Amino acid sequence: MRVLVQKYGGSSVASAERIRAVAERVARSRDAAGGVVVVVSAMGDTTDELIRLARSITADPDPRELDLLLSTGETVSATLLAMALRELACPAISLTAGQAGIRTNRWHSRARITAIHPDRLRRELESGKVAIVTGFQGITDEADITTLGRGGSDTTAVALAIALEAERCEIYTDVAGIYTADPRVEPNARCLAQISYDEMLELAQQGARVMHARSVELGQVYNMPILVRSSFVDAPGTLIGPGVPVEIRRRVQGIAHDTDVAKISLAGVLDRPGIAHALFEPLAQAGINVDVIVQTASFEGVTDISFTVSGSDLARAVDLVRPIADDVGASKLDSAADLAKVSIVGTGIQSTPGYAARMFGILAEAGVNIEMITTSDIRITCVVRRPEVERAVRALHKGFELDKE
Amino acid sequence: MRVLVQKYGGSSVASAERIRAVAERVARSRDAAGGVVVVVSAMGDTTDELIRLARSITADPDPRELDLLLSTGETVSATLLAMALRELACPAISLTAGQAGIRTNRWHSRARITAIHPDRLRRELESGKVAIVTGFQGITDEADITTLGRGGSDTTAVALAIALEAERCEIYTDVAGIYTADPRVEPNARCLAQISYDEMLELAQQGARVMHARSVELGQVYNMPILVRSSFVDAPGTLIGPGVPVEIRRRVQGIAHDTDVAKISLAGVLDRPGIAHALFEPLAQAGINVDVIVQTASFEGVTDISFTVSGSDLARAVDLVRPIADDVGASKLDSAADLAKVSIVGTGIQSTPGYAARMFGILAEAGVNIEMITTSDIRITCVVRRPEVERAVRALHKGFELDKE
Repeated sequence: MRVLVQKYGGSSVASAERIRAVAERVARSRDAAGGVVVVVSAMGDTTDELIRLARSITADPDPRELDLLLSTGETVSATLLAMALRELACPAISLTAGQAGIRTNRWHSRARITAIHPDRLRRELESGKVAIVTGFQGITDEADITTLGRGGSDTTAVALAIALEAERCEIYTDVAGIYTADPRVEPNARCLAQISYDEMLELAQQGARVMHARSVELGQVYNMPILVRSSFVDAPGTLIGPGVPVEIRRRVQGIAHDTDVAKISLAGVLDRPGIAHALFEPLAQAGINVDVIVQTASFEGVTDISFTVSGSDLARAVDLVRPIADDVGASKLDSAADLAKVSIVGTGIQSTPGYAARMFGILAEAGVNIEMITTSDIRITCVVRRPEVERAVRALHKGFELDKE
Repeated sequence: MRVLVQKYGGSSVASAERIRAVAERVARSRDAAGGVVVVVSAMGDTTDELIRLARSITADPDPRELDLLLSTGETVSATLLAMALRELACPAISLTAGQAGIRTNRWHSRARITAIHPDRLRRELESGKVAIVTGFQGITDEADITTLGRGGSDTTAVALAIALEAERCEIYTDVAGIYTADPRVEPNARCLAQISYDEMLELAQQGARVMHARSVELGQVYNMPILVRSSFVDAPGTLIGPGVPVEIRRRVQGIAHDTDVAKISLAGVLDRPGIAHALFEPLAQAGINVDVIVQTASFEGVTDISFTVSGSDLARAVDLVRPIADDVGASKLDSAADLAKVSIVGTGIQSTPGYAARMFGILAEAGVNIEMITTSDIRITCVVRRPEVERAVRALHKGFELDKE
């Protein structure tokens, strides 16, 4: 049976009216495709409201209880969408993660899908029903409800598409697709027709918020095409797939930026083996993600180390690093919270000379000072001062001619 | 293991503050008892709000979808109560109906419990945790969520108490227990220390709203004592049990009244076999409950038939009865919506002469006109005009000296 998986995010199902609009779109898709599986997020701000409710009871909600509490959000939207489809005379049934056979490990609030047993899902599809599955959640072998953490509903959708051998997974959201830059910052940003998994991963990791890296990774591993499009307007959207040959396409695909960057700098660190480990191991153990790391060349046996963390982790990170700074002989510990990252992403960037120089030139011309630089195979990232990042995005978008088709 | 089951209704868990108060009471009970199982309803008006939400999508929500939607209400309160208990350093875990092993048939919105598999429940209790179970719901063999209909959470609590061989089942509510009459109508109404299953069933069926008949019946069949008490004040409450010997206690235990009564009267009906069946079968098939039925003695081969239905069923009932009225030769079809019932309930009423006469005398003295009369073994009910029912309740309460210990 030909199967299509569609996922609708929280803003797409934020009200009864929007749920009816989604139902109409789903009903149309069903006429066109064979079986349709719909994955839904919780309505609007429901998840945040439930978290607030939990925090009104306790500052530190038990993760198992919180997961079960949060899971009600998607159950509400799934059942309402099923009702809206039936109202359109389109047979439909809502399925909880347990009913849909989405098994996870027991890592509450950040569970990983371990298996999908889609027997019932297949049965419902074969009986002609649209199956609406609660996103963002799963069930353990002990029948406890888990949630998948950030980007969870997208992950549910891609995982179900893979398990059902769907033709593709469609992610419906409140933007038209993946843009060459954040359209709120760069009004000339264009919606891309397609992008490769690798590029999408880099954009997601560097601050593009439309897709979470996790579901893109999953799509890449199983080669599942992911179409990102708007649930509000009829537009083709962006197809995330294996990508087209490097030579025939534009090298820079998009600009990502992230304004939640903070920096910690240690000056005069003794340059000897094990320093980096001593510094970063405690941060890793505390679950603090260290992003850009820059170490200057050693001079007279000492070196400077700078690294970035997210703004919300800065205070904790400084507390953890301070005692170590003494141990490693650092003469100074500095931190700065008002930073941002801007990245250019595109397959072939690193293998083609001149991109980095061109990027630095554009930023210099725009009067943007570069604090740190880091690169990957398909990305160059500069850490800049936060007040300058939007100017940097616009300058790079224009400089690399991303506004042109 | 000694087990105590407590059930808290919607008003008892209507806010974070009240949930914390319930947690404190539960924690104290746990110190006193062995294992504690807590059954919770949805917070405050949550269930009504979810029904409204469903009706904003469709006038006629699919029962399976509605059940799954409504089940989220109890999941929210159960998880919040578990968090509140943990906040008090009292180990606790919330269990959905599925996790608690509450199996039902597939009658969505009015499911019946078919079995309880309390393996996990026992395991959690034995590990020292308070187990908080979502009331009002169950799970079918196909893992679909059902709801139990009116009085559902009480039924969950009594059924779990039976399955776990609990010492008793405690129902916490917003009143102090079972009163001799509705305290909003009769300020002198007293809270009863105990009442028999039979009497409680009659009171419930005749309009007392504190307990639903269904859970009382279940308690009676398995001889499970049910203690009804307030979650807001510390008072002993009312114990519903097998009852004490008839001779040593007051004969009239309580006055119940119900203001949702409508009457349909057919005059000049041909008095021949099959008339009642022809009249009441279509009503039964439409799910309309006929309560009091009065047929006058036949005179010249014709008779008058009057019966009551609930006010909300009146319009539908009249539509169903009108064509039949012609078939059975009725000369007239009348209906009246502004009626009420008042009942005196007590073991021994029917077997002891004089109760009926005394009731009618009290009502006559109070100037209350009796429209219809019906009786059971332990109850006498009069249908009266709605504007007169509160006067009737007060007169009967005083006349039978229920205000006296």
